[in-house]
Amino acid sequence: MITLNNIIDAHNIIKKYIYNTPILTSNSINTIHHAKLFFKCENFQKVGAFKIRGATNAVFSLSKDIAKNGVATHSSGNHAAALTLAARWFGIKSYIVMPKNSPQVKINAVQEYGANITFCEPNQKAREETLDKIVKHTEATFIHPYNNEKVIAGQATIALEILEKIKDLDIIIAPVGGGGLLSGTALIISYLNPAIKVFGAEPEGADDAKRSLEQNKIIPSINPKTIADGLLTSLGTLTFPIIKSNVHKIFTVSDKEIIKSMKMIWERMKIIIEPSSAVPLAVIKNNPTIFKDKKIGVILSGGNVDLSKLPFR
Amino acid sequence: MITLNNIIDAHNIIKKYIYNTPILTSNSINTIHHAKLFFKCENFQKVGAFKIRGATNAVFSLSKDIAKNGVATHSSGNHAAALTLAARWFGIKSYIVMPKNSPQVKINAVQEYGANITFCEPNQKAREETLDKIVKHTEATFIHPYNNEKVIAGQATIALEILEKIKDLDIIIAPVGGGGLLSGTALIISYLNPAIKVFGAEPEGADDAKRSLEQNKIIPSINPKTIADGLLTSLGTLTFPIIKSNVHKIFTVSDKEIIKSMKMIWERMKIIIEPSSAVPLAVIKNNPTIFKDKKIGVILSGGNVDLSKLPFR
Repeated sequence: MITLNNIIDAHNIIKKYIYNTPILTSNSINTIHHAKLFFKCENFQKVGAFKIRGATNAVFSLSKDIAKNGVATHSSGNHAAALTLAARWFGIKSYIVMPKNSPQVKINAVQEYGANITFCEPNQKAREETLDKIVKHTEATFIHPYNNEKVIAGQATIALEILEKIKDLDIIIAPVGGGGLLSGTALIISYLNPAIKVFGAEPEGADDAKRSLEQNKIIPSINPKTIADGLLTSLGTLTFPIIKSNVHKIFTVSDKEIIKSMKMIWERMKIIIEPSSAVPLAVIKNNPTIFKDKKIGVILSGGNVDLSKLPFR
Repeated sequence: MITLNNIIDAHNIIKKYIYNTPILTSNSINTIHHAKLFFKCENFQKVGAFKIRGATNAVFSLSKDIAKNGVATHSSGNHAAALTLAARWFGIKSYIVMPKNSPQVKINAVQEYGANITFCEPNQKAREETLDKIVKHTEATFIHPYNNEKVIAGQATIALEILEKIKDLDIIIAPVGGGGLLSGTALIISYLNPAIKVFGAEPEGADDAKRSLEQNKIIPSINPKTIADGLLTSLGTLTFPIIKSNVHKIFTVSDKEIIKSMKMIWERMKIIIEPSSAVPLAVIKNNPTIFKDKKIGVILSGGNVDLSKLPFR
C-alpha cells in the first residue's frame, strides 16, 4: 500500500537531487491536435529520464545497515544509470548486470557514474542468475526497476509536480512498460484529483499491459517488437493491481505512428525525446474524438537516443 | 547610426510577437569546458531562429503607405520564413525569391506562413535579378536579411534579454555569417556594459569575417564550404564597421569541431540546434586558456535542421 504521504515523503527526499523539470507547450502541436497539451519534460531530468526519481527514493529509503552493502540491479537502460547515480549520491556501491549487447553509449554512462558492471548473455534467465550470484556474494540490495513501492512512489512525483503547476487538467497520459511510471501517476491522481482521467500509452508491438487489463491477469511481454525500447517489460505484481484500479484506459499505437509523433516533437518543439516518450502524443493523434478540446498532461519520459541510429527518413 | 534607443524601441515593438527565449545551463558541459555557459535558446524562437526579431522590427517600422505594397527578399533559409511571418502579423504581402534547390522543408515552412514564392536559379545573380523584377513590378520593400539598421536593432534584442537576466558576464559569443546578429550583439553590449568582451564564431570554411577584420575591408564569401548553412554570407556595409569597432575577436573552427559540439549539445542538453548554433561552443572548446573560469553568454541562433540528413555517425 503506497499512501499519499509516501509520495509526498518521496518528493521531499528526492527534490534536492533531481530537477523539477519544465512543462512546455507548443502552439502548433496544440492546433494540429485540437487540444491543450502540457508536456512534462523528463527528457531534461538527471540521467535523461524519469527513472532517477524512483531509484533515488529507493536508495535513500534504505537503512544505513542495509545500505552499507550497496545496491544491485539488472538493466540495459535508464534504470541502471539512475541507480548508479543515486547510489553515488548516497555514498554506497552499485552493482549493475548488463546484457553484453547493451548499446555502448549506455554502458559508457553507467561506467561514468561509477558502477561495478558485470556483463551477461542477453536473456532474462542469464540476467537474473548473474544478479542472484552478485547479490549473494555482496549482500547488496536488489532494487527492481519498477516492481518496488519506493520506486513507484518516486515516479509518482512527476504528476505531483504537474498538479502543482497546471490546474483543471482533464487527462494525464503516460507511456507504460513495466508500469512504474503509470501506476505512480494513477495513484497520485487518485489521491489528489480523481476527476482527472489517467490513460496509458503502449506500443502495439508490446501491448502486454492492454492485454493484461482485458484478461484481468498479468500477461508477460514475450518477444516484444517496438522502437520504444523503454517499454519492453511486463507489468509487475505491484504495478498491475494499481493500474487495474486507477487507470481508465490503455491505448496502443503502431511504431510508424510513434516515429511520426516523435518527429513532430523534435521538429516543432526542438527538443530531443526517445521513442517511448512519443507514444502518448501518437495516442492523442489517433483518437481525436476522445482528446478534442481537452487539457492534457503528457509525460515525456526520457531523451536518451543513439543519435547515429535515428528512425527519420 | 543605430542608437541604444533604437534597440529598446525594437524590443518594445517585437516583444508582443516573439518569445523571450529561455537561458539554459548544463552542469556537464560547464565541467567539461571549465567555464560557466549561459545558452540563449533562439532555437526555441518563432520560426525556429533569431531571424524573426530583425524581420519583425523591420516590417513593423515601415510607414503604412510604404508597407501597403508588401515586403520582399531573397533567401533560402530562416530569413524567408521570418519575413513572411512578420508580414502576416502586420497584415501585408510578402514576396520571397528562393533558389529552386532550397530544401523542401524550408519551402514548406515559407509556403505555410503564406508567402508568394518565386523560384530562381541557385546563384547570387539570379536571386538579385529575380528580386529586382518583383520589386519593380509590385513596389514591395526589399528587406535585406542583415544589411538593414532595423534588422540589426532587432537582432540586438537577444543580448538585451541576456543582460536583463544574467549579471557579471565576462564574454558574449555569437556565430557570424552576414553579421546581423554579431553586430547587433556588439552594439548593445557597447552601450550597456562595454566591460563584456564580444567574440564572433565562424566556420573555417567560411572565414570571410575573420579575413575582413584582418584586411580591414569586406572580403566577400566566395564558394564557402561548411556544414553551418546559416553562415555562408558575406559581411555587409552596415555590419562590417560595427563589428570592426565593437567585436574583440573572431575565432574560426573546423566543421569536424562544429559537429562534435553540436552533438554534445544534443546529447547533454536534449535540445535541437542547427550546426550554425554549435560554432560558439566549438570555439570555447578549442581555446581553453581564453575561456577558462569565465562567465559566458552563448547565443544558440536556431534549431532548423533536416532530421533525415544529420551529420552524426
